[in-house]
Amino acid sequence: MRIVDIREQSVKLDVNLRNASFSFDDMTTSIVALITDIVIDGSPVIGFAFNSTGRYACSGQMRDRFIPRILRQKPDDLIDPDRSNFKPEAIVRAMLFGEKPGGDMERSVGIGTIEVALWDAMAKIENKPLHKLIAERYGSGSTDDRMFCYVGGGWYAPDKTNDVLKDEMRKYLDQGYTMVKTKIGGLPLKEDLHRIDAILSVLDGPHQLAVDANCGLSPDRALEYARAFKSYGLRWFEEPVHPVDYEATAAFVEAYGLSVATGENLYSTEDQINLLRHGGFRPGIDFLQVDIPQSYGIHACAQSIARIIDYDWSPKSMIPHGGNQMSLAAALGFGMVMCESYPDVFGVFSGYADDTVVENGYLPAPNRPGIGFEGQADLYKLFKTLIN
Amino acid sequence: MRIVDIREQSVKLDVNLRNASFSFDDMTTSIVALITDIVIDGSPVIGFAFNSTGRYACSGQMRDRFIPRILRQKPDDLIDPDRSNFKPEAIVRAMLFGEKPGGDMERSVGIGTIEVALWDAMAKIENKPLHKLIAERYGSGSTDDRMFCYVGGGWYAPDKTNDVLKDEMRKYLDQGYTMVKTKIGGLPLKEDLHRIDAILSVLDGPHQLAVDANCGLSPDRALEYARAFKSYGLRWFEEPVHPVDYEATAAFVEAYGLSVATGENLYSTEDQINLLRHGGFRPGIDFLQVDIPQSYGIHACAQSIARIIDYDWSPKSMIPHGGNQMSLAAALGFGMVMCESYPDVFGVFSGYADDTVVENGYLPAPNRPGIGFEGQADLYKLFKTLIN
Repeated sequence: MRIVDIREQSVKLDVNLRNASFSFDDMTTSIVALITDIVIDGSPVIGFAFNSTGRYACSGQMRDRFIPRILRQKPDDLIDPDRSNFKPEAIVRAMLFGEKPGGDMERSVGIGTIEVALWDAMAKIENKPLHKLIAERYGSGSTDDRMFCYVGGGWYAPDKTNDVLKDEMRKYLDQGYTMVKTKIGGLPLKEDLHRIDAILSVLDGPHQLAVDANCGLSPDRALEYARAFKSYGLRWFEEPVHPVDYEATAAFVEAYGLSVATGENLYSTEDQINLLRHGGFRPGIDFLQVDIPQSYGIHACAQSIARIIDYDWSPKSMIPHGGNQMSLAAALGFGMVMCESYPDVFGVFSGYADDTVVENGYLPAPNRPGIGFEGQADLYKLFKTLIN
Repeated sequence: MRIVDIREQSVKLDVNLRNASFSFDDMTTSIVALITDIVIDGSPVIGFAFNSTGRYACSGQMRDRFIPRILRQKPDDLIDPDRSNFKPEAIVRAMLFGEKPGGDMERSVGIGTIEVALWDAMAKIENKPLHKLIAERYGSGSTDDRMFCYVGGGWYAPDKTNDVLKDEMRKYLDQGYTMVKTKIGGLPLKEDLHRIDAILSVLDGPHQLAVDANCGLSPDRALEYARAFKSYGLRWFEEPVHPVDYEATAAFVEAYGLSVATGENLYSTEDQINLLRHGGFRPGIDFLQVDIPQSYGIHACAQSIARIIDYDWSPKSMIPHGGNQMSLAAALGFGMVMCESYPDVFGVFSGYADDTVVENGYLPAPNRPGIGFEGQADLYKLFKTLIN
């Protein structure tokens, strides 16, 4: 039982989006196929993953460092004999050879993406959906048969009037979603507030809306936003300030009072713990967001969960970043509070299995073995280019 | 006046070293040449830099993102007309297009290395050593004619007895250095203490010795080291714990009491400020170390200095990481307390101009235009392969 090959390809994203701090014009991602020598139904088991969205492809790191470091191991050293399956800890350890502490994001995306592809293969070897395998290893063993899912939308675009914004949100409601999120911070505060009023006019109440500043506010401007947004009683206020400016985060949390969410731009357990220690983050009120393929993968997420428990946090206050089958599997497997969706925003890299039906805000738990990319025809076609 | 081309090459380091947390077996670095259309003495002005040591080459990031983003700018947008020279802020801004906040190290090394190469070209255009240009832009305008320099040595190696270690330190003293540093944390505490006793036996006193754990100690083990090392009264204790574990850093600082140094594995101003805010770091007692080519470059260092002043820190408590002509120029230009040297450790990537004579612990200020890599025959030969 061994890993035969790991292949990577950089793919340009076909998107044209803007948030408070960022343009996606140049964006790429790495797709990965991890090929094993296990044969099921006449075909080798192959794990697939991609490096989420918002950070660039990491071909060089994977090809020059992580893939050769795995392939040069003795195959038996990468196996958990008790489970007759691969051992993610051993594979991550192999990839971390010769890596200094700190500066995580340069490697956490490449390592995490390969690790998630490994889990796809592992779940396929055990012929179960990935969320079941995660729950058996790290969770309660049982998983819900559905997961609440909100829509991350409301991106800025030239000539995007508030009427267009309202139509966008109505479309999500028509698709079966019951909660939406919109970008803020990319316009003057007053115009942003008009956007919020417009969106609220098509919703049942403020609990159906969250806002996301994508770390684009200065500490002072964030406090203005805290004061202005407080009275709305929205579901949460996301990424007010720079992701590692814990002092400004704590000041925002105190000024805003209601639920705050952040963490998708933290790439290590150490930085997540810093948020809880120094960022004023409150268990049971705030939300810790995590991008699993971009922050060392699923085993690392389990290690973070083991650490946050010391600070009275639980997976029930966690939300996986990504809006894809990988984040859905993690949300279900670890028992997180919800996941997110970006319908049509990141091309083939957004969304869930083609046969997914959203009902009353919930996605059904997938039942395909592994992550289930095989249920996304266009994305799976892209993954198949790695192995043909 | 424009940048004609920027070229990069990944180079394997020819070293075999180990510290408390890390092996250099696979290590690479990126060398860069930034070619301008300015002609001096019949040759185009070309800036050179490499990405320090300890982090890997970043060819993909440079070639796919940073270099094209610079070369697609209008040349005039990259010029400071008042100074008739390039404008580092504009070039860094161009490289940061489409980059999300946080996760800095994935890009800070590539951006910083290109930025330092730009400064080499800028100083050559003004026909002065880089440290003079830095001092004019950001410092007092004047610079010392020498810089104190210690030797980072005492690496672990198989069969490295304490006698061999003593010989190594004696060799540094014979070369003209008056202060040395040794690795700790790679052996059990008792053996590490024997190493310290051995080294001290060839020095005049503990002020001549610093120790470096390279972030390799757990928080608990760091406290044991704090208690055991306190009575030695060494120059400083470096990188006791994980670089962004500010709570463990603060606990170590409190337990140890004497001077602590860290920061070379922080890659942004935000993380440096976190160390001062949350890491218990004390102005006038502790040392902030910074790797300039790995953390966005010289202008970013000036921005950090402008920020740390709010916390009663000054460049006089800063030490540049690297042990090369780039760090020497920064130490002199910004008025830092000292620099470091790794004689012969990182092959052509360590050390200073071939004609440098260390006297009583001091290096002379270089007088070649730019960084002065032209005075390092073997390294310059390597840089020349980029342009021939």
